[in-house]
Amino acid sequence: MAAVLPSWNDGPGKRAIVDFVAKVTREGGPDYVAPPERIAVFDNDGTLWSEQPMYVQLQFALDRVKALAPQHPEWKAQEPFNHLLAGDMKAFMAGGEKSLMAVVAATHMGMTTEEFSRTASDWIASAKHPRTGRPYTEMVYQPMLELLAYLRANGFKIFIVSGGGIEFMRPWAERVYGVPPEQIVGSSGKLKLETRDGTPVLLKLPEINLVDDGPGKPVGIQTHIGRRPIAAFGNSDGDLQMLEWTTAGDGPRFALLVHHTDADREWAYDRDSHFGRLDKALIEAQAKHWVVVDMKRDWKTIHPPVNPAEAP
Amino acid sequence: MAAVLPSWNDGPGKRAIVDFVAKVTREGGPDYVAPPERIAVFDNDGTLWSEQPMYVQLQFALDRVKALAPQHPEWKAQEPFNHLLAGDMKAFMAGGEKSLMAVVAATHMGMTTEEFSRTASDWIASAKHPRTGRPYTEMVYQPMLELLAYLRANGFKIFIVSGGGIEFMRPWAERVYGVPPEQIVGSSGKLKLETRDGTPVLLKLPEINLVDDGPGKPVGIQTHIGRRPIAAFGNSDGDLQMLEWTTAGDGPRFALLVHHTDADREWAYDRDSHFGRLDKALIEAQAKHWVVVDMKRDWKTIHPPVNPAEAP
Repeated sequence: MAAVLPSWNDGPGKRAIVDFVAKVTREGGPDYVAPPERIAVFDNDGTLWSEQPMYVQLQFALDRVKALAPQHPEWKAQEPFNHLLAGDMKAFMAGGEKSLMAVVAATHMGMTTEEFSRTASDWIASAKHPRTGRPYTEMVYQPMLELLAYLRANGFKIFIVSGGGIEFMRPWAERVYGVPPEQIVGSSGKLKLETRDGTPVLLKLPEINLVDDGPGKPVGIQTHIGRRPIAAFGNSDGDLQMLEWTTAGDGPRFALLVHHTDADREWAYDRDSHFGRLDKALIEAQAKHWVVVDMKRDWKTIHPPVNPAEAP
Repeated sequence: MAAVLPSWNDGPGKRAIVDFVAKVTREGGPDYVAPPERIAVFDNDGTLWSEQPMYVQLQFALDRVKALAPQHPEWKAQEPFNHLLAGDMKAFMAGGEKSLMAVVAATHMGMTTEEFSRTASDWIASAKHPRTGRPYTEMVYQPMLELLAYLRANGFKIFIVSGGGIEFMRPWAERVYGVPPEQIVGSSGKLKLETRDGTPVLLKLPEINLVDDGPGKPVGIQTHIGRRPIAAFGNSDGDLQMLEWTTAGDGPRFALLVHHTDADREWAYDRDSHFGRLDKALIEAQAKHWVVVDMKRDWKTIHPPVNPAEAP
């Protein structure tokens, strides 16, 4: 047991994972699943990396508002940008989804996919987490990186299915998680082909295509993957329908929730959190005997070591 | 040369394919492309299988109208269904896109994804091509099957990018082409998660999500694949923007059009065809020196042999 998933403490969570993988890969066994059907889906925020004190992509959007403000003098007197530029997060959050969408439109749309990709790449290469000072791409969970590698080594194909933006994740997910762009499912806006100086470009239109969260996750899975996963991993109510959809299929199925219980090493939150609220899904996980990882109890380490040579 | 692509005659088309694959796979060479970036996209209708005397999926839709007619007595007096039920294809075609959409809505929407998948699977298992009497899945092109295998053997990942319906192709494309559901890009309708008898289902709504044809093909590619292909294969004006998008990227690029020139063994058509019209793309192919396959000249065989033991 110690050889696999070294950052996981021995316990029911790790045992359930290893047992599931053993049974679906045992050729001739009653629960054998052929490799093409070994599809596993992972939420990103709060499941593969930290989502506190706010979603990473929200921090990106806020930083972009500041960077773009000199080109938009009108924002000083325009909600919700005025609140952000004044650093009044409380007033901004009071604007709810409308404010958020205004910021998404101003920072994620009206440019080509290549321009946006470059902007996201540049930001993620330099931005630092406000608490730890580490790059966000080091705020990933070491036990989950090991789980991704373990599943891949056992013939699973891994997809990220996130409420976050598909074009925000693609530039770095292959390097950080080993998940290529074509295996990223996320929220998206509509695109339009245009020609600029004789060259085709794809323009990101100010119109939502898919909100890949909650009931949108099975829609994203069907649209992009086209078959039902046999294993699903999440951490919040936004993952509930993905776990239900996955486990409603025939044959062996696996569902796991990461429960953030470690205020010392990461954060402790569930039903009252602004980001990654976990309430209904936790109740259903208990009723349906899904695996619930208690981060404090089950994980030996949280993030990869600052010095990669110290990795397990 | 004879060992690879055995159903291709030696000539400029085959040589261009083999040269391209050699240069992008030569490690250390100036045109080397790492395996994850070896993305190839193929149109389906007219590129991988025959699209005459009409698109296969249109035949499926017409057959479904007939099969569903007893449940819809009102169709006898309702356009365009009355024309179809009377066998008057000319009157039906005169209705243009509006008629087509009415048939698509009646036959492809308002059911769950699993119900539709089963219907498409059942149909394709039993339907026969009107001229040859062979199953449609045997109306594929043997030289293109060899090309798919050759590219895969050289580390390419293959996606189908078709104007046809994504959910229509997925049930059989893995068996017929070796392309799994998650590597199928196609036209799609919107989906909605619902609960039926306590079980989640995805309902196919009567609303278009993506028309994956013409300018929609680069949109479909970016949405599903998230990186630019290095090779693209098509046969009609509906593939023009896909070939332009593919070849507009940096580094080595490959674009190929199948030109249907063989009235004896298949069909001969281009600028005047109702299905798979090839006009602008042929002009651009000549201007840009894309490879144009002359089916009559370049292909030794068209379809796989009726007896699989006779395959090259």
